Order: sequence, then C-alpha cells, then structure tokens
Amino acid sequence: MAVDPNADIEITAFRWVPDFARGLVRDLRVRWALEEAGLDYRVRLLDQQRPPEYLLEQPFDQVPCFSDGTVRIFETGAIVQYVGEKSEDLLPRDPQSRFRAIQWSFAALNSVEPAFLNLLLVDIFYAGEEWAKLRRPGAEEFARLKLKRVSDWLDGNEWLEERFTIGDLLMVTVCRFLRHTNLVAEFPNLEAYLARGEARPAFQRALANQLAVFAANQPQMEGAAA
Amino acid sequence: MAVDPNADIEITAFRWVPDFARGLVRDLRVRWALEEAGLDYRVRLLDQQRPPEYLLEQPFDQVPCFSDGTVRIFETGAIVQYVGEKSEDLLPRDPQSRFRAIQWSFAALNSVEPAFLNLLLVDIFYAGEEWAKLRRPGAEEFARLKLKRVSDWLDGNEWLEERFTIGDLLMVTVCRFLRHTNLVAEFPNLEAYLARGEARPAFQRALANQLAVFAANQPQMEGAAA
Repeated sequence: MAVDPNADIEITAFRWVPDFARGLVRDLRVRWALEEAGLDYRVRLLDQQRPPEYLLEQPFDQVPCFSDGTVRIFETGAIVQYVGEKSEDLLPRDPQSRFRAIQWSFAALNSVEPAFLNLLLVDIFYAGEEWAKLRRPGAEEFARLKLKRVSDWLDGNEWLEERFTIGDLLMVTVCRFLRHTNLVAEFPNLEAYLARGEARPAFQRALANQLAVFAANQPQMEGAAA
Repeated sequence: MAVDPNADIEITAFRWVPDFARGLVRDLRVRWALEEAGLDYRVRLLDQQRPPEYLLEQPFDQVPCFSDGTVRIFETGAIVQYVGEKSEDLLPRDPQSRFRAIQWSFAALNSVEPAFLNLLLVDIFYAGEEWAKLRRPGAEEFARLKLKRVSDWLDGNEWLEERFTIGDLLMVTVCRFLRHTNLVAEFPNLEAYLARGEARPAFQRALANQLAVFAANQPQMEGAAA
C-alpha cells in the first residue's frame, strides 16, 4: 500500500531516468501490483550505471528485482504473478480463470510488447538512423496489427477476461509504450481500456511513487545555483 | 508421452511449414513439456491459412492452443507452466525454486527471445530490404549481448538453476531461433547447454513428432506425378 523503509518486500528501481522513460520503467508494474494487493514495500535505488555485481541479482542488468524473505526473483511477469498469488484480486484461484490471467501476462510480454518496444526504439533510441527511417512504416504497421488483435478480442468488454487480473495490469503497462504515438486512439475500445486501467487508484499511487523518486533526484545542471 | 487421438489434452499445430520454420514452430515447446511430464496428447492440425474463427481461440492467430477439459489456453509460456504444475520434474514446488523457474520462463520469452527473433526477421523474412541490411550489425550485436548475459549467468552450471525446469525448456527453444547463425557457438558453455537440452529424450521425441507431421503433409508439386 505504501512505500515503507521497514517493509519486508524490497524492489529495485532507478534513482533517476530521462523524461521519455518516466512512467514506463518496469518497477511501475510491480509497484502497481503491490498497491492492488495492499502490500507495503521498500525501494533500493540504483544509479543508471549499475555496479557490476548487480548482474548476479539481475543477469540482464534491468530493474526491478524483488525479494521478500521467501523468494528473490526478477522479471516483472514473474514478480507480478508472485504478488498475484498473494491476492485473489489480481489472480483468480480456479484453474481456468487463473491460467487465462497467466496466459494474458505472457501475451502482453511476448506477443505484444516486442512490437511496441520496437517502435519505441525506431522513434526514440535510433530516430536519427537511416535504417530506422526506412523501417518505421513497417514497424508501425506491425504495432497496429497487434493493437487490432487485442482490440478485436476485447470487443465491448471491460477487461481481457471477466474481471481485472495481472494480465490486464501487464497489458495496460505495455500499451503505455506507445504513448509517444496516436496509435492506441485508433482503437476507441482500447483507448478506453487503457484509461480504465490508469484510473485505478492503485495505478495512480504506483505512478506517483515512481515519479516522486525521479523528482527528488533530479540531477543539478553543472554550475547551476553555484 | 505419445501422440494419441483419444487423449484428453489437445494442442493445435500447423499441418505444414517451410524448411526454415521446422523444429522452431512453438508447438514444439508444448510437445516437449508434455513428453517430459509423461502426458499423452492429440494434435488438431491447421492450414497456414487459418479459418477466421480461430481468432476466437487464439487472438494472435498463432499456434499452439491447449485444452484438456479443465483449461483452454494459449501462449506457450502459460501452457508450459500449466503442464509444469502437473509435473515436479518440470516445475519444483518450493516457492523460491518454483518462482526462479517461472522467472526464467519470462526471461526467455521477454528479455531474450525478441532480440533473437529480430535477427531472424532481418536475416530471413526481410533479407532483401535495405533497412534490414543497415540494421543487421546492430541486431547481431544485440543478440550477442543477450547470449553473453545468459552465458555469464550459466557459467559452468548445467542448467539455469539447480536442475532442469520449464525455464531451461523455454530458453533452449529460444536459442534455437539463432540456428541460422554461428552466434551460440561463440559461447561454448551455451553451446553445450543447448546440446544438453536437445539431447533429452523428451525433446527428441517432441521434435520427431513435429517433423513427422510436416513430412506426412508435404505439398505435392503442381503437375508432379501427373
């Protein structure tokens, strides 16, 4: 529920990131899940330049890692599922509903996210490169096709299955990777779905907590206020 | 254990695919998990041109889907975990080992696979395009970095954690996406890991069963044997 330096649960997060990454860094997913589950947590902050030994905790040098005295794990898909197993609000208990939620977690992270991240790479990380300009139309079309698949499935429903689960939590955060484009708005039911997810009080608290860290650690301009 | 038309478990798979996709199509993962778990299954074969109503089962129009009378799910990550919950050989029961295995499933499919599939797209699907030529060095470097991360983690160990789990099953199949390159061989411990996974009798049976379908449904050349 709240960030508490004495909580048993610890996650890692970045001390500061540039504007384009704020509200996208993946500890947001875990913060959101913990807020939905009503679990307190503390945050261990890392600089952009992680110490080499962080690879022993997180072999891909990413955030977040998660530990709670019982498990020590990384990968947001796994962490969110672990939190879900502590809260039926996030992960139903009957086998079919449970595995439909897990299925949508993998769908968000494997069938959808790579297409959206690819467009983010083309538009932001490699924006100046010739290959990125040539690739952009195809990358956009592929991202649009993924949106259409999810939109068609969602149809007029509120969530991907009968009620909100970890699958929606991950799909909503994945759709946020396209916020630099107008693509989601091409699918009004998806736009409403994204807004519905982001309107959840738990999401709002998670986002505010992530952004507060960056605001508190804004680097001073060299020579400013000297 | 065996493909049995009367089994309760049903998976979907393709009737036929071109050479480059044989031994890569994702029903291989589920066949492998079922073989490790000793569970019989039947296969519902689909043409490359799926009927539109297949999207109601699999919104991304991919194979495999899985049903067993209890659940009806898609996404190989979720299916393999479901099979794992039926067999401790694939998914340990204590929380830490269990979630380390689940973590590596997500790592294989979200932190690693997109980089390898991207190189497959550049080298095979878009090989003739200008952007693909320009992008290739960067795409190869990114795939190599992912291999290095997994290789460094694996070090001298046999499997990603203490013993073989669904995480290894998925990581091995993900590494197979690079078989058109020599990249895995740059990391001898990873090359040995891949060979160790592929040498498992359950993998060999799964691969033989996938390939047998394609051999039995080889399209006749127009006019051949006329």
